[in-house]
Amino acid sequence: MKLLEDRIRTEGKVAPGDVLRVDSFLNHQVDVVFLDRLAEELCRRFEGEKIDKVLTVEASGITIATLVALRLRTPLLFAKKAKTSNIDDRYWQADCFSYTHGIAGRIMVSKEYLRAGERVLIVDDFLANGEAARAMLDLVSQAGAEAAGVCVMVEKSYQPGRKSLDDRGVRVESLARIASMDPVDGVSFIS
Amino acid sequence: MKLLEDRIRTEGKVAPGDVLRVDSFLNHQVDVVFLDRLAEELCRRFEGEKIDKVLTVEASGITIATLVALRLRTPLLFAKKAKTSNIDDRYWQADCFSYTHGIAGRIMVSKEYLRAGERVLIVDDFLANGEAARAMLDLVSQAGAEAAGVCVMVEKSYQPGRKSLDDRGVRVESLARIASMDPVDGVSFIS
Repeated sequence: MKLLEDRIRTEGKVAPGDVLRVDSFLNHQVDVVFLDRLAEELCRRFEGEKIDKVLTVEASGITIATLVALRLRTPLLFAKKAKTSNIDDRYWQADCFSYTHGIAGRIMVSKEYLRAGERVLIVDDFLANGEAARAMLDLVSQAGAEAAGVCVMVEKSYQPGRKSLDDRGVRVESLARIASMDPVDGVSFIS
Repeated sequence: MKLLEDRIRTEGKVAPGDVLRVDSFLNHQVDVVFLDRLAEELCRRFEGEKIDKVLTVEASGITIATLVALRLRTPLLFAKKAKTSNIDDRYWQADCFSYTHGIAGRIMVSKEYLRAGERVLIVDDFLANGEAARAMLDLVSQAGAEAAGVCVMVEKSYQPGRKSLDDRGVRVESLARIASMDPVDGVSFIS
């Protein structure tokens, strides 16, 4: 999606350690009106599909997932990263390594809210190693639900996440597919 | 707001330890279309006010804050709970004790995105002890910005958060003010 690629070219900064900083508009300060146009495009791509629920994981995926769910008029379910007193004891859980934080973790959703037969659209901000998407697919599978697909705003296509989802036959929709990036040459996209 | 009070009466569950479980529609599974009506009401209350930015803290405040920011057509800034590789080294930070998780923590926002002279609307899901609101006001103050007010969906009025904000002269808008609650009698509201 040219709109997003242009914004990444203009405002994105490639930092050492394969980090794309887009925190001026995407995942710290958020240009919500802009993201709503991205949500519109993601919904367009799934037009005609039956979707019962949008699933994301806290925290930075929640903005785009909220906007997609609002447009689809479905509930949003966000997986939590730790057990708190607010979560029910009975939940689906999946291991999930965070490359951003460099730690092993676990995500979970209450069994009350993810059920057999539901058709779920997984939405997140980034797809890179694919750990979060894999873990969410794992939750969906445990519940006996079905994934309509995985939607992300930005995909690092040179990392293994996209390929592993393709190999599993999961539909993936990304609005910007990064072919390569480095601090000197910047970002190039798969058109 | 009767709409929200009715929903809490119908679906909310009071659990031991002063926990109000509203995770069927508000902070785990989220009824986004319903929350958008709450966002509309919060925006109505601040009509005519100059607001440059919406500020919240990850994670469960992000849904309502996204919807408020979309309606106000302002950027959303969400404070992060830990320093990650995605955040700039230069940030405002404030200590924030989490009663939900039972741990001392810290929240932070990049100095790039919270600046002197900005008028900021603080939005969160709950106001109870007021730690998150106090910490966000602290960030706003450090930046030399100004708080237009604090908006929450649910306030536990019997806990100290509301009073401490009133004492500081901060404008607080809550859509449901809980006077008391217990597992047997349920929830009663300040009308």
